Amino acid sequence: VATVTARSIASALAAALGDGVVSTDPDVNRSYEVDWTGRFHGRSACVARPRTSDEVAALVRWAVEHQCPLVPQGGNTGLVGGGVPDASGSSVLVSVGRMSAVRDVDIVAGQATVEAGVTLGALDRALAGEAWEFGVDLGARDSATLGGMAATNAGGLRVLRYGSMRANVLGVEAVLGTGQVVSHLQGLVKDNTGYDLAGLLCGSEGTLGVITALRLRLVPRWPDRLAVWLACDDWSHAVDVATTARLSVDGLDGLEAVDSAALRHVQEQLGLPSLFDTIPPVALLVAWAGRGEPPDALGMLVGDHAHVAGVDAAQWRSLWAYRERVTEAVARVGVPRKFDVTLPLRDLAEFTRRIALEPAAHGAVVFGHLGDGNLHVNLPGQGEQSTGDDVDGRILGLVADCGGSISAEHGIGRHKAPWLHLNRSPEELAAFRSLKAALDPTGIMNPGVILPA
Amino acid sequence: VATVTARSIASALAAALGDGVVSTDPDVNRSYEVDWTGRFHGRSACVARPRTSDEVAALVRWAVEHQCPLVPQGGNTGLVGGGVPDASGSSVLVSVGRMSAVRDVDIVAGQATVEAGVTLGALDRALAGEAWEFGVDLGARDSATLGGMAATNAGGLRVLRYGSMRANVLGVEAVLGTGQVVSHLQGLVKDNTGYDLAGLLCGSEGTLGVITALRLRLVPRWPDRLAVWLACDDWSHAVDVATTARLSVDGLDGLEAVDSAALRHVQEQLGLPSLFDTIPPVALLVAWAGRGEPPDALGMLVGDHAHVAGVDAAQWRSLWAYRERVTEAVARVGVPRKFDVTLPLRDLAEFTRRIALEPAAHGAVVFGHLGDGNLHVNLPGQGEQSTGDDVDGRILGLVADCGGSISAEHGIGRHKAPWLHLNRSPEELAAFRSLKAALDPTGIMNPGVILPA
Repeated sequence: VATVTARSIASALAAALGDGVVSTDPDVNRSYEVDWTGRFHGRSACVARPRTSDEVAALVRWAVEHQCPLVPQGGNTGLVGGGVPDASGSSVLVSVGRMSAVRDVDIVAGQATVEAGVTLGALDRALAGEAWEFGVDLGARDSATLGGMAATNAGGLRVLRYGSMRANVLGVEAVLGTGQVVSHLQGLVKDNTGYDLAGLLCGSEGTLGVITALRLRLVPRWPDRLAVWLACDDWSHAVDVATTARLSVDGLDGLEAVDSAALRHVQEQLGLPSLFDTIPPVALLVAWAGRGEPPDALGMLVGDHAHVAGVDAAQWRSLWAYRERVTEAVARVGVPRKFDVTLPLRDLAEFTRRIALEPAAHGAVVFGHLGDGNLHVNLPGQGEQSTGDDVDGRILGLVADCGGSISAEHGIGRHKAPWLHLNRSPEELAAFRSLKAALDPTGIMNPGVILPA
Repeated sequence: VATVTARSIASALAAALGDGVVSTDPDVNRSYEVDWTGRFHGRSACVARPRTSDEVAALVRWAVEHQCPLVPQGGNTGLVGGGVPDASGSSVLVSVGRMSAVRDVDIVAGQATVEAGVTLGALDRALAGEAWEFGVDLGARDSATLGGMAATNAGGLRVLRYGSMRANVLGVEAVLGTGQVVSHLQGLVKDNTGYDLAGLLCGSEGTLGVITALRLRLVPRWPDRLAVWLACDDWSHAVDVATTARLSVDGLDGLEAVDSAALRHVQEQLGLPSLFDTIPPVALLVAWAGRGEPPDALGMLVGDHAHVAGVDAAQWRSLWAYRERVTEAVARVGVPRKFDVTLPLRDLAEFTRRIALEPAAHGAVVFGHLGDGNLHVNLPGQGEQSTGDDVDGRILGLVADCGGSISAEHGIGRHKAPWLHLNRSPEELAAFRSLKAALDPTGIMNPGVILPA
C-alpha cells in the first residue's frame, strides 16, 4: 500500500484519473465543503467529479491503494453532515452530479433507470407527459439527487403510500469500497437471487460504496386529487384521526401534521392567510389522489369534523404550502436546530407532552409526516450554536426513551453518530461494523459517518 | 474449537440445551427431513425445536463452538430445498415451529409482533375481528410460518399491492451466525439508524442467522371486493391489459394469469366448471379490493373486453380457484418440475414464445403473478426425475437470456445454487460471500444454500 501526504493527494489523483475530473479550485470546491444550512463544513484535499461509473471505479481503486478517505456527495441537501468532509483536508469529496443521464424509461413495467446525479426535479421533467411518475417526493426536489436520496434512504411526503427510497429502488449499480463494480438494473420486482445488496446500500450513507445508477419503480400519475386540513384538539386526537384515515380512505396520499407554532410561523413569517378562524393546537392535512371522485370515506372523515379548511381540489398546492413551507418560515427566524425523529404512534402524544415540559426544547416547532410517526422538531434560531452539545443529547434521549428513532429520514451522518447507541444495541453495532468491513475492508468510504470513527 | 463426531452431536447438544429441545426420534424427525413435494430429502444428526430466542442463541453458540452446521426450518413449505438438510447427517435441523406466540397487535400503528413459528393462518386468526390484516398472502397459508416467509422473502398473491415479505417486515429479532442476538422490533416505519439488517436477513434463507421474531406491517381489511377474468389473445395482450389496469385502477389487489394448459388442468383434473365458452390462450384475473363501489376504471377495463367471466363480488373465492388451484391440478398428473421466474414485462411475451419452442419444456403449464412479471412454469410429471439435470439448466438459461430472474419468490435454496451465476456477476457473488462471512464467520448457517458450498 502506497501512501501519499494530504497535500499531494490532489495532484496524484488528477494524474491517475486524467483531465477534467479533479478540481483544486477553492472557489469551486467551497460550495461542496459546506452544507446548505451552513451548520456542517469541512475541507477536502480536492473535489472529484467523475462522469462515468468507470471513473468512479478508478477513483475508488486509487483511494484503496493510497488509503485515502472518500466522501460521496449528491445534491448536498443532507441535514446531518453525511456528505461534507471533516476538517482534516485529507479526504477526497466525490460529487456524483455529473452522472446525470436518464438511461431508460420503461412505460410497460413502469420503471426508470437513472444515473446517481439525476435530480428528483430532472426525473420529473423526463417523465412529463408519461402516465407514470416517481413515488418519492420531498421539498428539496430541485437539488436532491436520486443517488443521494437512495444513499440516505430519503423519505418525504408520500412514504405513507409508496414507502421510502429503499422501497422504490429495484436495483443499483455501485462501486463498493473494495473497488468492485456491482450492477443489477433489470428492475425485477420479484428477484430472490441472493442477498439484498441494493437495500443494504440504500441508507448506508456512502459508507459502503458509491451508488452510480438506480433502477426505480414508478407509480401511476393520478389525475384527481383533494386536500383538506382538519383542526385537532391535540396530538392524541390527530393520531386517532390519522388512524381512521389510514383504515378507511383508499388512495390516501398524505397525512401531514403541524402544531400551532408551525402554523403561526407560516402565517406570520410568510404572510399566508389564516387557515382557521382560531389556530388549533394541531392541524392535520389529509390528502387523497386517485382517478375520479374521492371515496365516500374521505367525505365521512371530513363530515365528522367541526373545523375544516379548504375542501377544494383546485387548492392542492396552496393547502400543501402550510406544511411544505414550515421549514422556510422557521428559517426566517434564524438557523434552526433540527431533529428528525420517529415515534411509535401509540406513544407519539406522550412524547409531545414530555417535550413541551423539557426546558431544552423551549420554543419548539413540531410538524411532520403523521402517517409514519415522523416528527420534525425544530428549535428556531438555535442552529448556530455548536453541534454536539447537551441539548441534542437531551432531546434525542427523550426520543429513545419513548421508543422512537433518533433519525427518521435524514440519516445519521456525522452529526448523530455519537448518539447511534441510543437506538442500536452493542450487538447491532457490532453487526454494522462487520458489514462495513465486508464491503469496505480498508475503511475508506465516508469514515466517521453512521459509525463513530 | 472443540469438534464432535456426527454421531455424538445429538447427545452433546441435548446435554447443552437441556430437556425437551432435541429430538432423536426417527419417526418425528423424518417429517422435517423431506420437503412436502418429496423432491428434496436429507438427513440430520437431530432436530432441535427451541421454544425461545434464548434457546436459539444457546444452540447457535454451541454450533459455533463445535463447528456444527445448522439448517433452520419454518413450516417446511419451501420449494427449493432451502430448509432440508443434505445427506451427510452431520447438521442439526432447527425448527422454529414452537416459537408461536403473537406478542403484540398494535391497532393504532397497524402492526403486529409475532414469533417466527407463527403460521400465516394463525396470524389471520389472531387478527380476526380487527380492522387490520396482514398484506402477504399465499397458498400455503396454513403451514407456512412467518419466520420462514421472511427468511425466503416470500411473495404470493398481493405483491402487486403490498410488496413481498421484506416490504412488510419492519424489524426482526434474530440470532446471527456469530451467536449474537439482535432485536429491533419497535416498528418504526421511518428509521434511518444504520444499515438495513432486517432487510438483509429477509431473503437470506437461513444462511446469516435464525430469525426468531418479526415486527410486521398490517394493511386495512377492505370490506368490498371484485374479481373478473378476462380472455386474452396471447401473453403480449395480457401484459398490455395488465399495464392498463396498473395505471388506471386504484385499489388493484391482484393481476394473475393462467395459460390455456393451466385452465384445462384445473377444469379437467378438479372438475371446475368452464370459465369461458372457449378456453382462451391466456386468461387474466383482475382483482380489486376497497371500500364502496369499484372504481369506474375497472368497469371501463371490463367493458373494453369481449370475453369476460364472473363480474360478481360474491364469486371472489370461486373465481380465484382457477388461479390458486393450478398447483393442485398439475400435481394430480404427477410430481411436477417447477420453475419460479420473473421476466421483465417488456420481454415476457418473447420468453413465452421461446419456451413454447424449447423441446425441454414440452407440455409446460405457465401461470403466475402477471403484475410482477412472475411466472410459474410447471412441467407436469417431470418432478420425480433427478434434480440438477440439463432441463433445469436449459430453462433457467433461457430465463436469464431474456433478462429474467431464475428465482422470483421461492429463493435459491440448494436446488438453484448451481445456477445463481446466471443472474449474479462474480463481483456480486464476491460481495455475497463477504456479507456471509461478516454475519456467519464460521460458516455454520445453512451451508450450501444460496451460495454453492
